[in-house]
Amino acid sequence: MALIVHKYGGTSMGSVERILNVAKRVTKWQKAGHQVVVVPSAMSGETNRLLSLAKEITADADPRELDQIASTGEQVSSGLLALALQAQGTAAISYAGWQVVIKTDSAHTKARIQGIEKDKVLQDLANGKVVVITGFQGVDELGNITTLGRGGSDTSAVAIAAALGAHECLIYTDVDGVYTTDPRICDEARRLEKITFEEMMEMASLGSKVLQIRSVEFAGKYRVQTRVLSSLTDPMIPLDVEMNSGTLITFEEENNMEAAVISGIAFARDEAKITVLGVPDRPGIAYQILGPIADAMIDVDMIIQNQSVDGKTDFTFTVPRSDYQRALDILKSKVQTHIAARDMMGDPKVSKVSVVGVGMRSHVGIASKMFRTLSEEGINIQMISTSEIKISVLIDEKYMELAVRSLHKAFELEQRP
Amino acid sequence: MALIVHKYGGTSMGSVERILNVAKRVTKWQKAGHQVVVVPSAMSGETNRLLSLAKEITADADPRELDQIASTGEQVSSGLLALALQAQGTAAISYAGWQVVIKTDSAHTKARIQGIEKDKVLQDLANGKVVVITGFQGVDELGNITTLGRGGSDTSAVAIAAALGAHECLIYTDVDGVYTTDPRICDEARRLEKITFEEMMEMASLGSKVLQIRSVEFAGKYRVQTRVLSSLTDPMIPLDVEMNSGTLITFEEENNMEAAVISGIAFARDEAKITVLGVPDRPGIAYQILGPIADAMIDVDMIIQNQSVDGKTDFTFTVPRSDYQRALDILKSKVQTHIAARDMMGDPKVSKVSVVGVGMRSHVGIASKMFRTLSEEGINIQMISTSEIKISVLIDEKYMELAVRSLHKAFELEQRP
Repeated sequence: MALIVHKYGGTSMGSVERILNVAKRVTKWQKAGHQVVVVPSAMSGETNRLLSLAKEITADADPRELDQIASTGEQVSSGLLALALQAQGTAAISYAGWQVVIKTDSAHTKARIQGIEKDKVLQDLANGKVVVITGFQGVDELGNITTLGRGGSDTSAVAIAAALGAHECLIYTDVDGVYTTDPRICDEARRLEKITFEEMMEMASLGSKVLQIRSVEFAGKYRVQTRVLSSLTDPMIPLDVEMNSGTLITFEEENNMEAAVISGIAFARDEAKITVLGVPDRPGIAYQILGPIADAMIDVDMIIQNQSVDGKTDFTFTVPRSDYQRALDILKSKVQTHIAARDMMGDPKVSKVSVVGVGMRSHVGIASKMFRTLSEEGINIQMISTSEIKISVLIDEKYMELAVRSLHKAFELEQRP
Repeated sequence: MALIVHKYGGTSMGSVERILNVAKRVTKWQKAGHQVVVVPSAMSGETNRLLSLAKEITADADPRELDQIASTGEQVSSGLLALALQAQGTAAISYAGWQVVIKTDSAHTKARIQGIEKDKVLQDLANGKVVVITGFQGVDELGNITTLGRGGSDTSAVAIAAALGAHECLIYTDVDGVYTTDPRICDEARRLEKITFEEMMEMASLGSKVLQIRSVEFAGKYRVQTRVLSSLTDPMIPLDVEMNSGTLITFEEENNMEAAVISGIAFARDEAKITVLGVPDRPGIAYQILGPIADAMIDVDMIIQNQSVDGKTDFTFTVPRSDYQRALDILKSKVQTHIAARDMMGDPKVSKVSVVGVGMRSHVGIASKMFRTLSEEGINIQMISTSEIKISVLIDEKYMELAVRSLHKAFELEQRP
């Protein structure tokens, strides 16, 4: 017997019929002897419906009131799921975030979980109940309802699993796992049976949309074994098959015997690059350039500053393509004259491609293999940035698919390690 | 400057446009120097939508989960109203019942308010905010969400007004007040400017659907001056006009100088009558007959037991027509043989007509005037029951409209007192 947390997304909760299917699946787990906590999202479309009503009233809505409104979607789906479980003969109770209590800070619409009281939930589980807890939300110390931001139900599920000391957190979704790269770009993409948290962090932040990045942080920090798997299978699929499906996000140490050198190829298509030329090479210059960009809430990703020549250097960084023009305008109006830069140039049609893998820590030659592969395809590398477990390159957008496919092949990702 | 509670029903909150109108009306009151607490119902149709989802899942739903689900309707409308007020430049904050806190017992779907914490609300008001509080709901001592039953938002508003010591509780609705009788039956029905709580209790329980009966009880018990008025007027109608519109439900003592003898004619069309004949006249017999009826959750209204002759008596009572057959079946299967009653008879086509008025306490001759009027119209009286401020008669259903109209005329209700 183990304590298991299930999380179901909005699509899985999208209709009464689907909610009844979720109840069947959860009941199957409980009948097999497990204690189950379920974290549902709002029924698909509901959060948007609620926020649209708010937007019809005012474009500039008070975030506290938005949270009061938006948090009801999960309260409804949780109550409906509890009813569906009861209709299957499975004892169940639903709790909103404030009832658990899931404590957060007061950053409305993007709050962070600070703690979870577990006594009531553990007692219900001990009494044979399935406990349904609203995803996406909590309550601050003043009793205001907060929400965690889009995709926050993943974070709720992992945080609840951590607080309860769950054996595993199952994230049911409409894909059947994490792939070596996007199958829409590369036919040979293969589902990974396992991936480490660190790799998943890099994959998620580089554009794999399977899990909210913060939930992966949480899973890593609190060592919650997390599995991404499909909610589209028959709910009565045998438990031992389901338990081994999807992709397990786990810990490197436990996994290193069979770890591949490279786990996947991630990419971000819609990047843009800006270079400030002839910048005086003095302390504080990076802040003077990037401060106004950050103030405008523009995310800066890669940053490169070359060795200076004659006290001048070139400073290059990337931003999301949708923020390119705004970033350029800010630099021209607020920065260029101020720092006495010689000139500025930019390219809004660049993409980032990354190879990710914990194995590269102990294997040399990954970078050179990556650069050689791109070179053989005639793809010019515009920028390079590296971390312990990934190497990212910035290239012309038109070569992105080619780069992903050739790297996937070069690192033999279509084969199991 | 006064503290005023406004309550708006589902129709008044039925669309974004109507919510904006409510915000205009509330803002007008606040700008005139009043402190305003607003208690909205869910947007019209929303509670039914939520309960239908639950019903699709199971016909036999857990009341606790129904409350978790149904209570979200008011949370959404309250948040939207707070946003609409803010969009008018009016500082506002919304609270769910558990945030206030509105404490209730644990009788899910029909809970009773036990107490309201007022400090937070009074502080917000002192800080110049309009406070929006969800109607219809509270929280029990274990932290479970409860609802007060249909129409419970009226009770919420009056209870909040009582707790805050509000000057007046304004119940905005889609009628413009309380009438001497139903205008659909009697053309000459007249809107009452004032009515006492006791009269309103009788009028409400006898079929006037303007206010939930429990809200009137609350208003009377805690001496909350309550006004029923229309939300369909232009929101920018001058405040002094609005303040004197509708019907004020007030205290007899303050009102007795101009009190009419009779305030209105109430009626209940769909009644049924059952007589148990030849019942032994011994202690406990009434309980033996009505106990099984009450156990089946059937409401018994009028009860008459005649003087016994030879140790036997006849026992007559009325039930809602929809429960007539069920009540008869219960009596036949569980009661008749057991108590050795001679026979049973019934009539499912009877109606109750009542004259209501605090003035009848100090005026003789009301009953005889009522009986004479009905007699002159050839209407036979089947049962009579009286209270301090009302006289009810049971008559054949086909005479109901005639009885209402002739009594309205006989007591000159078309004229102001």
